[in-house]
Amino acid sequence: MSINPFFENNGPFKFSEIIKKNNFNLSTNDLSSNYEINDFKNLSDATDTDITFFHSLKYKNLAKLTNAYACITKKELISYLPSKCIKIVVENVLLSSALVTEQFYPDSVVDDNNYDVKPIKEIYKNIKSGINSLIGPNVIIGDNAKIGHNTLIEKNVKIGNNCFIGSNVILRNVLIQDNVHILDGAIVGKKGFGFIPKDLKNYRYPHIGYVLIKKNSEIGSCSTIDRGSLSVTSIGENTFLDNQVHIAHNVKIGNNCIIAGQVGIAGSSILGDNVRIGGQAGISGHLKIGNNVQIGGGSGVIKNIPDNSKVMGYPAKDIKKFIKENKND
Amino acid sequence: MSINPFFENNGPFKFSEIIKKNNFNLSTNDLSSNYEINDFKNLSDATDTDITFFHSLKYKNLAKLTNAYACITKKELISYLPSKCIKIVVENVLLSSALVTEQFYPDSVVDDNNYDVKPIKEIYKNIKSGINSLIGPNVIIGDNAKIGHNTLIEKNVKIGNNCFIGSNVILRNVLIQDNVHILDGAIVGKKGFGFIPKDLKNYRYPHIGYVLIKKNSEIGSCSTIDRGSLSVTSIGENTFLDNQVHIAHNVKIGNNCIIAGQVGIAGSSILGDNVRIGGQAGISGHLKIGNNVQIGGGSGVIKNIPDNSKVMGYPAKDIKKFIKENKND
Amino acid sequence: MSINPFFENNGPFKFSEIIKKNNFNLSTNDLSSNYEINDFKNLSDATDTDITFFHSLKYKNLAKLTNAYACITKKELISYLPSKCIKIVVENVLLSSALVTEQFYPDSVVDDNNYDVKPIKEIYKNIKSGINSLIGPNVIIGDNAKIGHNTLIEKNVKIGNNCFIGSNVILRNVLIQDNVHILDGAIVGKKGFGFIPKDLKNYRYPHIGYVLIKKNSEIGSCSTIDRGSLSVTSIGENTFLDNQVHIAHNVKIGNNCIIAGQVGIAGSSILGDNVRIGGQAGISGHLKIGNNVQIGGGSGVIKNIPDNSKVMGYPAKDIKKFIKENKND
Repeated sequence: MSINPFFENNGPFKFSEIIKKNNFNLSTNDLSSNYEINDFKNLSDATDTDITFFHSLKYKNLAKLTNAYACITKKELISYLPSKCIKIVVENVLLSSALVTEQFYPDSVVDDNNYDVKPIKEIYKNIKSGINSLIGPNVIIGDNAKIGHNTLIEKNVKIGNNCFIGSNVILRNVLIQDNVHILDGAIVGKKGFGFIPKDLKNYRYPHIGYVLIKKNSEIGSCSTIDRGSLSVTSIGENTFLDNQVHIAHNVKIGNNCIIAGQVGIAGSSILGDNVRIGGQAGISGHLKIGNNVQIGGGSGVIKNIPDNSKVMGYPAKDIKKFIKENKND
Repeated sequence: MSINPFFENNGPFKFSEIIKKNNFNLSTNDLSSNYEINDFKNLSDATDTDITFFHSLKYKNLAKLTNAYACITKKELISYLPSKCIKIVVENVLLSSALVTEQFYPDSVVDDNNYDVKPIKEIYKNIKSGINSLIGPNVIIGDNAKIGHNTLIEKNVKIGNNCFIGSNVILRNVLIQDNVHILDGAIVGKKGFGFIPKDLKNYRYPHIGYVLIKKNSEIGSCSTIDRGSLSVTSIGENTFLDNQVHIAHNVKIGNNCIIAGQVGIAGSSILGDNVRIGGQAGISGHLKIGNNVQIGGGSGVIKNIPDNSKVMGYPAKDIKKFIKENKND
Repeated sequence: MSINPFFENNGPFKFSEIIKKNNFNLSTNDLSSNYEINDFKNLSDATDTDITFFHSLKYKNLAKLTNAYACITKKELISYLPSKCIKIVVENVLLSSALVTEQFYPDSVVDDNNYDVKPIKEIYKNIKSGINSLIGPNVIIGDNAKIGHNTLIEKNVKIGNNCFIGSNVILRNVLIQDNVHILDGAIVGKKGFGFIPKDLKNYRYPHIGYVLIKKNSEIGSCSTIDRGSLSVTSIGENTFLDNQVHIAHNVKIGNNCIIAGQVGIAGSSILGDNVRIGGQAGISGHLKIGNNVQIGGGSGVIKNIPDNSKVMGYPAKDIKKFIKENKND
């Protein structure tokens, strides 16, 4: 599957055109380039016809290996990039990246309402769907789907076979595999919460990614799962989310996970398989949670957790330590 | 009121039939039984025509007193059961119990959408109801109800007199007494979040219970209250829940409680009367919170709390201790 | 703008009438008064034709300066009030205040459903609006608004130019300035969670205020913002709220703030400009958070935070202290 099955790419653009439009500064050698750029991708996905970005030392190992034709970055990071990669040095890497992304995908900045909708009953006469449930363009629904009332499948959605979708659900930009249950009031696929503060304004970051919900999973009532910015937000096979869970953009959750009510997972964190998370726990952004990890209810996880750990507390620590420290309370 | 006013019981079944269907092992004496079993109930509700289950030492006192004809349990627990009670020893008590429950109540595993709905206006011409609000089978609405727009009263609902139901509300399997307010976007009565992990799969646990909301109570916007598994999830008289509160299956909340925004209460916990809980506090599962308890905002309660206590912190402790320990922060 | 653009004031009432109706005790001098009272307002807004209330020492400085004709208060507080202000001494200041408020604004105690709604398409033919989106009385929508499906703009709403309103949104009693985005499933303007426990009953407090969302702001999916009781709940310019955020009544948030997912802010707290709050953090009621404050994810703020502070923890403390204390976890 392509990294971006849903948003229409307005490219390719000539590299010189991108440089000029954004007032990027390059050395004269680079400026002569008339090369065509196909897409804006992250460090690992970019090929030699793409532009990428590199904004934090945290990603230096990915930077060293990137195949990107050019990379938006800042002065102090250019030494980590391959010599053949053209360096575009800017003041605000994220802002410049957002502007280039927007050039390729102008529709990705705001989730505009889609008014080209029809009753699902009119389009899919053979599946069960409720009163006032609506379907927009670029939607495919598999066999034996059951869809409730007042549900909006707005656009860019593929639903596998034997899926259950409740009432008051809103779906957009989401791939749903077979046997998935999405319960009442869940909202899946909206733009992630990404901003770049600039001159005391928040500049909205484009989100050209999508949500992938793998087979046999369940998403609870009133849960929200935002789509990825450049990549995917994914929920593994046989993974169950309870009510009022919030999954931010770019999060990747493994298989066979159990996530209790009101848990929140901040942007870009990655969870392994068989992870269990108690109610109201929170996981900060950009973390890696290993396989078979258990996180106690109410915990606040602010660092990576290795495989097979049991943690609890805020900040979350080894559960035995947590219990010992609090045994007299 | 019967323990199960809503789900249709497919029983009775012959005891020998249940044993055979589930490949349960019994001593030869027991196997000869041709007795009829009416229902699957918990340890205290089961009579001598019911099967029950006993899976944790925590319930040994209830086990000793059970009147059940037979009990699904594990080897190390059989000594706590009455001698006349037939012991069905299995490897995974919850999984075997789920299978027997499902045999009696096949519709209880998944909340299937109900497509047999009509505009409330058509059925109840004398009560006030909004645009596109729908009503399904087995619903009774009392006098002077006011029901908003786009609200779904899906099935198995009884609403008392003088109730206020907002817009975008979803109700199923719930008994609502007089003068109750249920605010916009609340979802009450869905299946609880119950799974039995087995062979790296999550087996969905049936939920044959319901939700009971006693008179003069209020449920806030976007709150979710799940129905009980075998028993009831109940909200006491004159108890007020703020927005985005999550109440899990089997929770029982007393009278005159005040529960602030974003509080979460995990499965099977029991709260007394006059309990006050500050915003975002969480209560773990299977706990007992006494009468007149006050729980500070943000607390994480992980053990029982006696009557008249004031607690705060994570884990929650005596509030004076919490304040003293943190006075220099 | 008047303090109360939306609720209809049934006044003026004669002062003696208010006193008699509520069985207030006054000295004989005062009882003779035949003065007309226009409104019930808070200490700072009340003029010499209004009644006010004063229930906590915390507000003594405001009490000293009030221009109110009369003030509902308790015995131990009367010395703080100006000599010309008539003191109405009662047992339960909040309860008596609620009763007087209700006398002026009988519709403010319960958010009654409004059945006088029409499809937005019928009323506003030139703006984009979706299927089954409804509009009630006293609503003005600006130019270029885009409104999704199944959205209810119930009553007392003014929407500025170039606003984006998603699907399944519910709005009432809210002023929205230009370029605001309100995402799917948000509920804005409902009555705040305010109760006065009396004789083991919770008496509902009237909420005659509204919500103000200033220009360029964004409200995330499934967020809830309650309207003020006597005053306004306000969200500043260019302030962004993520999904599942809860903002209680009377909260005032400054400009350029970023508030991540599942944050909760309790009643009457005031936040400055450029405040950033991480996911799941909570702020207790009646606090003052300064400008440029950063609050780490999961924090529980229980005291005022001065300008330019960075805090984290529960209770929230200086972030350097928090990190130092927890460095070995």
